[in-house]
Amino acid sequence: MRTPYGEVKTPVFMPVGTQATVKAVLPRDLYEIGAQIILSNTYHLHLRPGSEVIKEAGGLHKFMGYDRPILTDSGGYQVFSLATLRKISDEGVEFSSHIDGARHFLTPEEAIRIQNNLGSDIMMAFDECAPHDCGHDYAREAMERTLRWLARCCEETSRGEKPFKQVLFPIVQGGMFADLRVESLEKTLPYVKVGFGIGGLSVGEPKHKMYEILDALYPHYPKEFARYLMGVGSADCLVEGVMRGIDMFDCVLPTRIARNGTAMTRNGKLVIRNAVFKEDYQPIECGCDCYACRNFTRAYIRHLLSVDEILGAMLLSLHNLRFLIRLMEEMRSAVLTDSFMDFYRDFADSFIDF
Amino acid sequence: MRTPYGEVKTPVFMPVGTQATVKAVLPRDLYEIGAQIILSNTYHLHLRPGSEVIKEAGGLHKFMGYDRPILTDSGGYQVFSLATLRKISDEGVEFSSHIDGARHFLTPEEAIRIQNNLGSDIMMAFDECAPHDCGHDYAREAMERTLRWLARCCEETSRGEKPFKQVLFPIVQGGMFADLRVESLEKTLPYVKVGFGIGGLSVGEPKHKMYEILDALYPHYPKEFARYLMGVGSADCLVEGVMRGIDMFDCVLPTRIARNGTAMTRNGKLVIRNAVFKEDYQPIECGCDCYACRNFTRAYIRHLLSVDEILGAMLLSLHNLRFLIRLMEEMRSAVLTDSFMDFYRDFADSFIDF
Repeated sequence: MRTPYGEVKTPVFMPVGTQATVKAVLPRDLYEIGAQIILSNTYHLHLRPGSEVIKEAGGLHKFMGYDRPILTDSGGYQVFSLATLRKISDEGVEFSSHIDGARHFLTPEEAIRIQNNLGSDIMMAFDECAPHDCGHDYAREAMERTLRWLARCCEETSRGEKPFKQVLFPIVQGGMFADLRVESLEKTLPYVKVGFGIGGLSVGEPKHKMYEILDALYPHYPKEFARYLMGVGSADCLVEGVMRGIDMFDCVLPTRIARNGTAMTRNGKLVIRNAVFKEDYQPIECGCDCYACRNFTRAYIRHLLSVDEILGAMLLSLHNLRFLIRLMEEMRSAVLTDSFMDFYRDFADSFIDF
Repeated sequence: MRTPYGEVKTPVFMPVGTQATVKAVLPRDLYEIGAQIILSNTYHLHLRPGSEVIKEAGGLHKFMGYDRPILTDSGGYQVFSLATLRKISDEGVEFSSHIDGARHFLTPEEAIRIQNNLGSDIMMAFDECAPHDCGHDYAREAMERTLRWLARCCEETSRGEKPFKQVLFPIVQGGMFADLRVESLEKTLPYVKVGFGIGGLSVGEPKHKMYEILDALYPHYPKEFARYLMGVGSADCLVEGVMRGIDMFDCVLPTRIARNGTAMTRNGKLVIRNAVFKEDYQPIECGCDCYACRNFTRAYIRHLLSVDEILGAMLLSLHNLRFLIRLMEEMRSAVLTDSFMDFYRDFADSFIDF
């Protein structure tokens, strides 16, 4: 996939830098672990520091000192998950900030204008993310509104002179209903230029439900566009996603559980914070090539976590991100050598999801 | 100065890694900013994770993945400043842990044995640090006890086979009394091999008091031993210290104020957290060669601090440490080119202590 800030090799996992920083990781360390593209959140940056501050800095890349591709979401998901006192209309969404309760109004046009200020390589369309347990009618309504908003996002994107070169990714919705999902995809495709998101999954439903939806969509994908499964980042879901034709993923999971003292490994999660690791002088994961695994032991990292030292979160964040990025690199190589099914079976044999 | 893990060029500032980590800084980034030697705290490591865990890891260097010289203090200062319910006798100090209240007993011998387990290059003797406002009698008593404890530290140091090669630094005490300080120095010198500490300063007294004591000691230093002024780390005190013949310093100040959102600069402190920096697109300090100044603006770091992102503390810690290390490098170069007084005047002209 080509973007203004460079090429991205798929399938790819995008580390999340919610507030213009991947938590506890220096940008140069992101390069080192092989991050190709990161995600940042429009909703958060709009509230603090405000997109004008970032535009004045020369855009998000310059602001956060990161010179590889960046994707920004539209704020839609956060408006529907974090903000309170929402009033949804066809015009847009009025909501209260989760920080100070201040009232805001976000429209498709405003979501694009904010992302124009940020200057991300990939902008996401403003969508309505329906709850996973909503009925068919609600899901249809949200899906149709997302399509009407998509047309407005596209119009705003092509309006006038823009400060940065950017591409818009539409988002497929439709809840947990295969018929709505396929309809959403077909009506969305005319707006797609480089790729599209699949939103409203990994929002609380069981994994098999998500896989069913992906299975239903699979026969309808055109070959030329990147498919981005939003908000997914556990190792098993990445493998199952690639198996179902997904090219892009993002999730806060690796950095969030790192800060809680948990490491991702090929055999599943390790709660390094636990006392059992007090005198375990092995690396987090044998064979891992990350800085944390090359230089430190579980005993040391466990010590850092148990005395609340920031370095513990820093090292585990590096490891967990490298773990997922390496997993993607292995899958890419398996796809290119036509051995993905072997990879899939090996992975399923060793991975324990607990 | 030569140590088992390498040479140290003086004058030198030692970043503090209290709990076997310089807070929020990766060891490889310590190398990059030119850290030559760091300090770690016996008291803290004794309580968590315990010195046996570190010995089993192969010593503190291996445990924390840091392969340059390390100095450990003796725990004396923390016992007198952090711990509670102290009972001081000639045998040693009984105290309650500041973490869980558990009773501990620390003696000169035990302080050495713990440091033997840690395997630091430089061990500090176990001393009694008197309050800065104590009277002459109290100060004399603490100074004399420190001398008696020093003899026991030396004896323990030379007893039997030790797991690591280490050198012991005695500590000069004597409160705010010039006569006691000079007496302490003279009675301490017979025990000195490589260098000695000057303890019980920078403990709450006004700066001019500390400078008076250093002035009183100055004529009595032998040329061949390194002089380490313990717990001092503000830029002006480093300059005044070097002016008075000091070779080594340590302090938590640069990393502690970094976590509070404050940057050290040649013109004094900058509270980067303040709103005035919201749209200030300059680096923290123009001309600084650190990673933070080369890649990020005050506006970005201010944003990180105001949304409580760890990266803010990481970047300011890097900058503040590099700032002090660079200051020491400049002073060394001024000393070597016989231009220290010019340096001193330039520094005094620009530095504002507020």
